[in-house]
Amino acid sequence: MSIRIGILGYGNLGKGVECAVMQNPDMELAAVFTRRAPESVQTLTEGVKVYSIEDAKNMTEQIDVMILCGGSATDLPEQTPVFGKLFNTVNSFDTHAKIPEHFAAVDAAAKGGKKVSIISVGWDPGMFSLNRLYANAILTDGVDYTFWGKGVSQGHSDAIRRIEGVKDGKQYTIPKEEALRAVRAGENPALTTREKHLRECFVVAEEGADQAKIEEAIKSMPNYFDEYDTIVHFISEEELKANHSGIPHGGFVIRSGKTGLHGENQHLIEYSLKLDSNPEFTASVLVAYARAAYRLAQEGACGCKTVFDIAPAYLSAKSPEELRSHLL
Amino acid sequence: MSIRIGILGYGNLGKGVECAVMQNPDMELAAVFTRRAPESVQTLTEGVKVYSIEDAKNMTEQIDVMILCGGSATDLPEQTPVFGKLFNTVNSFDTHAKIPEHFAAVDAAAKGGKKVSIISVGWDPGMFSLNRLYANAILTDGVDYTFWGKGVSQGHSDAIRRIEGVKDGKQYTIPKEEALRAVRAGENPALTTREKHLRECFVVAEEGADQAKIEEAIKSMPNYFDEYDTIVHFISEEELKANHSGIPHGGFVIRSGKTGLHGENQHLIEYSLKLDSNPEFTASVLVAYARAAYRLAQEGACGCKTVFDIAPAYLSAKSPEELRSHLL
Repeated sequence: MSIRIGILGYGNLGKGVECAVMQNPDMELAAVFTRRAPESVQTLTEGVKVYSIEDAKNMTEQIDVMILCGGSATDLPEQTPVFGKLFNTVNSFDTHAKIPEHFAAVDAAAKGGKKVSIISVGWDPGMFSLNRLYANAILTDGVDYTFWGKGVSQGHSDAIRRIEGVKDGKQYTIPKEEALRAVRAGENPALTTREKHLRECFVVAEEGADQAKIEEAIKSMPNYFDEYDTIVHFISEEELKANHSGIPHGGFVIRSGKTGLHGENQHLIEYSLKLDSNPEFTASVLVAYARAAYRLAQEGACGCKTVFDIAPAYLSAKSPEELRSHLL
Repeated sequence: MSIRIGILGYGNLGKGVECAVMQNPDMELAAVFTRRAPESVQTLTEGVKVYSIEDAKNMTEQIDVMILCGGSATDLPEQTPVFGKLFNTVNSFDTHAKIPEHFAAVDAAAKGGKKVSIISVGWDPGMFSLNRLYANAILTDGVDYTFWGKGVSQGHSDAIRRIEGVKDGKQYTIPKEEALRAVRAGENPALTTREKHLRECFVVAEEGADQAKIEEAIKSMPNYFDEYDTIVHFISEEELKANHSGIPHGGFVIRSGKTGLHGENQHLIEYSLKLDSNPEFTASVLVAYARAAYRLAQEGACGCKTVFDIAPAYLSAKSPEELRSHLL
């Protein structure tokens, strides 16, 4: 029997989950839930049942795992405890500083409903976190580095678009080559914000807008750009659409550490991602952890979990025997 | 209370475990067990108790986890079922093709003794296996690549040393740059053995030996060298000692895969290791999994496990709260 997946929230991430479920023959998409009028939602594939989010609570028997595809700012903190009581859930909550609080709220709800909820699934938090944990447990005497990019930051792109005179814009976060080189050489550099990443902006200005003023407004924007070397390009709307409509991302998690009687041997563990589509990759991670949530629930587990709490074998559709024979 | 570690087998790997235990304040080295005369064994650190391997069976109360540091050819297949019945154990069994058989033997023993044994811990099998599993579970439509090196292959170095006229020698396995480039570019190349790795040999010839004949013997050696591009350098004994006495290794695990409604988005997951000391890094992984074995046994688990079966949090000395706050 297939694992019946529900998608709650149908934006880029929800569409990514729809595609990812199709790549996993042990799963089926049971329903999409939306805050919009269901009849107004056009899904990527035909035959998908779309319901109002209000109907979800009456469909606990039809959904094995609900994948929550809302945003971390307001959607997930509200929705996860509510739906985590009714369903096994997976979310991609990514406000690092608020994870302990979110964990506590979801844990109480999931235990109350005897369900499994896995939070903060994706790549950072998610796969990057896993690699930080494994590398720290192995190389206890070492230094951690995380670099992001090259990729589109939605938050920074939004910030650019709020500036007066800006019609549209896209921001790329780019790790600095020299910083990566020094880390990989085992130099354990202490890197400032400016030394780690570069910010490159592609901006479409309104007709007649003062480009010099826009550039200055971007470069001096506190929290977003002022601590970085920022490059601003003004381009046409056509060029933005043609060359910058993707949502690529990626990054690097590196730990450099020492072993030996006198720390004489140096080691480098590096994990990197290069993603054409940030939401589709995140969706693929969510779907693998949905499998884990389903299996854990079948075993009688309940409560809130993170990627740290899940044995890797739970993610794979393959049997333990197959995994040992082919991937170990 | 510290986790009391026993080391069974005191070669390079056992010495690495001795060093790694010192880096982990929640552990202590309780004893070293050897097949040699215990009084003839000089440990790296002072005050280590060295016993005959025969004494181990009487010391089940003094050891929480026995780390088995013998070789995969004969030591581990014999020792793991024997000691896996008496102790929680961790080993680095690395004969990939025989893992299912080894798993079955160790599982029966560990269940019989109500202990936990974790097999095939290290980096390949081990961390590389984990990365293959995670990447496969996420990108279900993709291709896997594993490259080894640059690093010393003990098996190939031994093979060189068995050739007539060779006094000493060292072999490095080196991934080919062009192959790595094509994989990283998402070209999904079908690579032959020769296209993936290069073999570079540093050979000390006996005085008066025929170097041309040695070179030919190396390059044409079946299974070891004949399917590879092999470079042979003749050097002096002093040079070998000065520049080639380390045991570096490393490698790359890469999965290239597609997502999207029509597979239109490409993704690359890459994990790499660059290790100054292969045995010390392997030992560090063994020690992290010894912590997991101890905790699983405390929880009442028993039987044989692999890295696939262990939730990552078990490896870390940090609490779940700390992990969520600092590494997620």
